[in-house]
Amino acid sequence: MRFDILSAVPELLESPLSHSIIKRAVNKGLAEIHIHNIRDYTLDKHKKIDDYAFGFSAGMVMQIEPIDRLISHLKSERDYDEVIYTSPDGEVFDQPMANSMSLLNNVIILCGHYKGIDHRIREHLITKEVSVGDFVLTGGELAACIMADAVIRLIPGAMSDVESALSDSFQDNLLAPPVYSRPAEYKGWRVPDILLSGNEAKVKEWEYEQALERTKRLRPDLLKK
Amino acid sequence: MRFDILSAVPELLESPLSHSIIKRAVNKGLAEIHIHNIRDYTLDKHKKIDDYAFGFSAGMVMQIEPIDRLISHLKSERDYDEVIYTSPDGEVFDQPMANSMSLLNNVIILCGHYKGIDHRIREHLITKEVSVGDFVLTGGELAACIMADAVIRLIPGAMSDVESALSDSFQDNLLAPPVYSRPAEYKGWRVPDILLSGNEAKVKEWEYEQALERTKRLRPDLLKK
Repeated sequence: MRFDILSAVPELLESPLSHSIIKRAVNKGLAEIHIHNIRDYTLDKHKKIDDYAFGFSAGMVMQIEPIDRLISHLKSERDYDEVIYTSPDGEVFDQPMANSMSLLNNVIILCGHYKGIDHRIREHLITKEVSVGDFVLTGGELAACIMADAVIRLIPGAMSDVESALSDSFQDNLLAPPVYSRPAEYKGWRVPDILLSGNEAKVKEWEYEQALERTKRLRPDLLKK
Repeated sequence: MRFDILSAVPELLESPLSHSIIKRAVNKGLAEIHIHNIRDYTLDKHKKIDDYAFGFSAGMVMQIEPIDRLISHLKSERDYDEVIYTSPDGEVFDQPMANSMSLLNNVIILCGHYKGIDHRIREHLITKEVSVGDFVLTGGELAACIMADAVIRLIPGAMSDVESALSDSFQDNLLAPPVYSRPAEYKGWRVPDILLSGNEAKVKEWEYEQALERTKRLRPDLLKK
């Protein structure tokens, strides 16, 4: 799977996309991440890619021309399944969307600037708008990192078996049960006796009950999905 | 405002927290971000901070001792308003939560490992669990970056007036209206005539109508808040 991430601040994207599971998936050839600086595609001699908004709003708007030139360049080299724009008004990113995206081949993610991009880009060049949540970020870079991270770890082979994504929260609409590790007692705080019992059937039953209880208490909405 | 971010993969946090508005806020003395490597607080000679889960689950669990030692060390130096753990079962992060957090002084954010941390940490050391969305990430580092970014930009002085956060999406429960910039016509795609009219009252009215129409169509749930 190939990601092309388009940004006005590509430095932001460096460290989150070059460590841990993403790094391993890239090294194994399971994923490619190409980061593009939108400034490299402007014809402006000062490398400017934003300008005042038409009308009377405060704030700068990312212009259509450099972004259109960059997307056209990429599309001339290969077909893309989606051209995604990260925006608070997009479809909300969740685990089912991550699952679907992990089946795609080539995806462009355009990182928005927080006051917005020329709306004609959204009307004519973008195929899908995605929001990672109801909050405003300085730019779409962190949203792009979140999508890449959540999706790449689902690609078969990206994680080892023991890390299997199948037991993650949300994959069965239940929150994960509590987990504990050594020591069994720390400062008087003990792990539940059942987990030390060695009775696998009882442990599994306890884990399911805990997952269900936690979901009912903390996220009852997940049970209705 | 001071953030202490605790991570097992602190390299991940470098670039998102050292550019753009966050960098400026830090340089102006409006925010401090201290990144701590949990491995520096283990007594294990191999710097190991995770171990097998009790019971029969696959996957490693972050242990209580190094995290307790790190949090105790920080608490001995100053008072903290919140000790936050990033977790998919936490309270969902949104703009009202970002607004409240921007009024705090000292906050610890513990970045989870995706299979979880010893539950006793959550019971005894954490004061608030926060989720950035219904998806699973490799770790909590990106969630911590999102919180820091969304909160720091709200601190008075972090943004210039023209960037003012007051006109952001979500601050008035309306999505932002479309924005456009030069050129007024590109490849036959024109900006709406009203924006070129110079009639401020008409433009404001159009913007409000657009914001309302977009919210009704894309995020009707926001209007009920």
